[in-house]
Amino acid sequence: MDFFFKPSSVAIVGASPVLTKAGGVIFQNFVHNKQHDLFTGELYPVNPTYESVFDFKCYPSVSSIGKPVDCIVVVVPANAVCSVLEDSVRGGVKGAVIITSGFSEIGNHDLEAKVLEIAKKGNMRIIGPNCLGVYDAWSGVDTLFLPENKILSTGREVVATPRPVRGPIVLISQSGALGAAALDYMAGRAMGVRALVSLGNRADVAEDELLRYFRNDEWTRVILLYIEGIRNGRAFLEAASSVSLVKPIVAIKVGRSSSGARAAASHTAAMSGQDEVYESAFELSGIVRARNLDEFFDMGRAFLYQPPAKGNRVAILTNAGGPGVMAADTLEESGLSVVELSGETKSKLERLKAEGKILPYASIRNPVDLSGTATSQMFETALRVLVDDDEIDAVLVITLHHTPAVLDDVVGKVIHACYDRRKPVIACDIGSTEMAEEIRSRFEKLRVPAYTTPERAARALYALVTYGKYLEHVKKHGLL
Amino acid sequence: MDFFFKPSSVAIVGASPVLTKAGGVIFQNFVHNKQHDLFTGELYPVNPTYESVFDFKCYPSVSSIGKPVDCIVVVVPANAVCSVLEDSVRGGVKGAVIITSGFSEIGNHDLEAKVLEIAKKGNMRIIGPNCLGVYDAWSGVDTLFLPENKILSTGREVVATPRPVRGPIVLISQSGALGAAALDYMAGRAMGVRALVSLGNRADVAEDELLRYFRNDEWTRVILLYIEGIRNGRAFLEAASSVSLVKPIVAIKVGRSSSGARAAASHTAAMSGQDEVYESAFELSGIVRARNLDEFFDMGRAFLYQPPAKGNRVAILTNAGGPGVMAADTLEESGLSVVELSGETKSKLERLKAEGKILPYASIRNPVDLSGTATSQMFETALRVLVDDDEIDAVLVITLHHTPAVLDDVVGKVIHACYDRRKPVIACDIGSTEMAEEIRSRFEKLRVPAYTTPERAARALYALVTYGKYLEHVKKHGLL
Repeated sequence: MDFFFKPSSVAIVGASPVLTKAGGVIFQNFVHNKQHDLFTGELYPVNPTYESVFDFKCYPSVSSIGKPVDCIVVVVPANAVCSVLEDSVRGGVKGAVIITSGFSEIGNHDLEAKVLEIAKKGNMRIIGPNCLGVYDAWSGVDTLFLPENKILSTGREVVATPRPVRGPIVLISQSGALGAAALDYMAGRAMGVRALVSLGNRADVAEDELLRYFRNDEWTRVILLYIEGIRNGRAFLEAASSVSLVKPIVAIKVGRSSSGARAAASHTAAMSGQDEVYESAFELSGIVRARNLDEFFDMGRAFLYQPPAKGNRVAILTNAGGPGVMAADTLEESGLSVVELSGETKSKLERLKAEGKILPYASIRNPVDLSGTATSQMFETALRVLVDDDEIDAVLVITLHHTPAVLDDVVGKVIHACYDRRKPVIACDIGSTEMAEEIRSRFEKLRVPAYTTPERAARALYALVTYGKYLEHVKKHGLL
Repeated sequence: MDFFFKPSSVAIVGASPVLTKAGGVIFQNFVHNKQHDLFTGELYPVNPTYESVFDFKCYPSVSSIGKPVDCIVVVVPANAVCSVLEDSVRGGVKGAVIITSGFSEIGNHDLEAKVLEIAKKGNMRIIGPNCLGVYDAWSGVDTLFLPENKILSTGREVVATPRPVRGPIVLISQSGALGAAALDYMAGRAMGVRALVSLGNRADVAEDELLRYFRNDEWTRVILLYIEGIRNGRAFLEAASSVSLVKPIVAIKVGRSSSGARAAASHTAAMSGQDEVYESAFELSGIVRARNLDEFFDMGRAFLYQPPAKGNRVAILTNAGGPGVMAADTLEESGLSVVELSGETKSKLERLKAEGKILPYASIRNPVDLSGTATSQMFETALRVLVDDDEIDAVLVITLHHTPAVLDDVVGKVIHACYDRRKPVIACDIGSTEMAEEIRSRFEKLRVPAYTTPERAARALYALVTYGKYLEHVKKHGLL
């Protein structure tokens, strides 16, 4: 499917110089990316109304271009889509991203069937219809008709739908709006994106093929899936199982409630089905399920920076009692084990107390509570002991910066203690001041994901443990 | 208990000119607030070591001040606390905030009992020990030994523990660290604070008395409670029930898991007890329970701006299918009802379609999905119909700003449609770009709470419905 993601030539059918039209925004995206050497393929506007669009010669049809076209982006009204496809098939086009809506999502099943028939006969693949299509941060393919900037009523121009920087995250989404919102969410958290694919009605290409494609894609490291309903369960299960072996998948599945299912049906013509079926499908294929949108991205970030855990035994290291309790609650409720520390580890911590390297009134049960007067150095000293313990599989570190003796050097200290281990460490600092933001962002630059609440950190760790468990299981028992 | 929150005179016992010491930070807080006319009482440093601190005459003991002292803040070592109290009782002090730790939280029950005995005999009340004490944004009482600013390793000075602006939120917390973190969280979200009370070991003053105090406090509108364990269940239940009649309470209860309970015990000597007991106590007394820290503040904000709901029937209005489904799922999972719209409301929406006032392919089931090409005006038009429907108790509006025709004017349009109704409306826009932040903050300025994900908006609405249900129940059946 390289013709969707790395096309050597693209035609925008319905391209327009009018920037309030979808065909205007999309064509401009490609022009902009071509000017900045991000998109390096050939680019052709197609629209019988115009002689040229943004100084590009405009063609009345795809077949009239007279040169090979890898992929077309279709932004014409629904009733004109079939003739566009027929013409494109004649021109040897390999893929069509059909943005246009008005198909099965509003009951127009016949039209969608006809579209699919033309494509099948012509050996052409389809993404969509009724979708946002593809945003590929690496190749410059950008079929999103959502303008990057908007002008506020105050006259100020602001970013509305950002195009995040290149990175390793793929998002495959049935909902286009959710896809755009995700770009907005990820751009603000400096999460780099490999690609967004908005699938819409999935007349042809569905999750399974995309999963396989990104499995073998060198730039992809984590795959996020937004699902309303899967049509071909077997194909999905096989693809997901195969991908999970090499790359983690995080899924959010909606349409669990009756009204949610009703809405999903009219949204992308998806049948939500029984939630338990999805639950076990995810478990069987190593997909980690997020319960909500925050978790979805939180878990994605955890996988970006940290290895899967070898087991479910977690230690909590904190300078704040309450937040330590919160983390313990959430970890246990998620099936992880906040273990009693081993005798050896306890003795080591006792020795640190005796040597004055941690405070005498620190609690050395798990959570290990260094107390509100702990210094940054004490975090390093205690964390070394915890990551050295073979009976601990992961550590959740809560470094509240409010206490007098914790400065921003706590980040470096924590990293020192754990950077050369293949044992996951996750951080938490609460607050929205500059200092809180600074600490979390420094942690992430050094590849320790840092969360805004203990519960969110705990759930991110749950993802690393769940995925690790799957890998262990497959190693022992084989696939499925 | 005005002597804690509006004292006409305060002595800081253990005051110091050294700003790295707790007695230094706390005394400086009061000096700063006095200089800015925020704290208007008399202020006395007490410390036998100094003649003066920051140009204030320093006294060797409380009794040597020779003038009435309402309240003392105790920052001396644990073994010196009793003599300080004995001396203060002689001087007629009414309240003591004991910051010092080293009491029952480390097994030193005898010392704590002795402290309490002295206070009882002397008719003095105690907050603490082992606490942060009181931050009162209205009177300038600030016993937090956490410095407001810190200097980063880059040399830049940043806010570390902010003192949020005056507002209507009270936070009563067993965990001091959580209290500080909460100030940090709330300051960043422009949530104004009435007071933070960190209770520590609760040798004397506990939640019940504080609840009653803030019930009758004119500035308080919402009370947030962080709980590890309640000692006097009956007193708590009675106080909470009485407060809930006039002001909403949101609680987060931790120590639910075995390791969490273990940690809570060593943190503030709290017995967590069985979670089901708390669950039903909360239900009986009208307390809304938050499941995690994000919800805790999200729900607080909902109560600040919106009335309780009269019932559990919710309509969702959206321009984004997927997020609409997410909201529906979470609402239903929380026991709310995403109802089928009435025949009359459906006809009204059909008429709007016919008149071209909303789009012909909008979905007018619930969620009402205006579609990705909807304009800001369409939100107003459709929302009017929904708030007019007596069979709908609340509306969740999702205004994703990414779609081409939605600009920041959508905020004004939504407000127009609902500002004069006593029916809760909650908003959601996803993303972290400037535009997303701008839209959410404008909503909140106009008193519609706006959330970053559909699930968080749904849970905030759950709080309004749950509290509304309690009020209805009490109206019908009386208290408890």
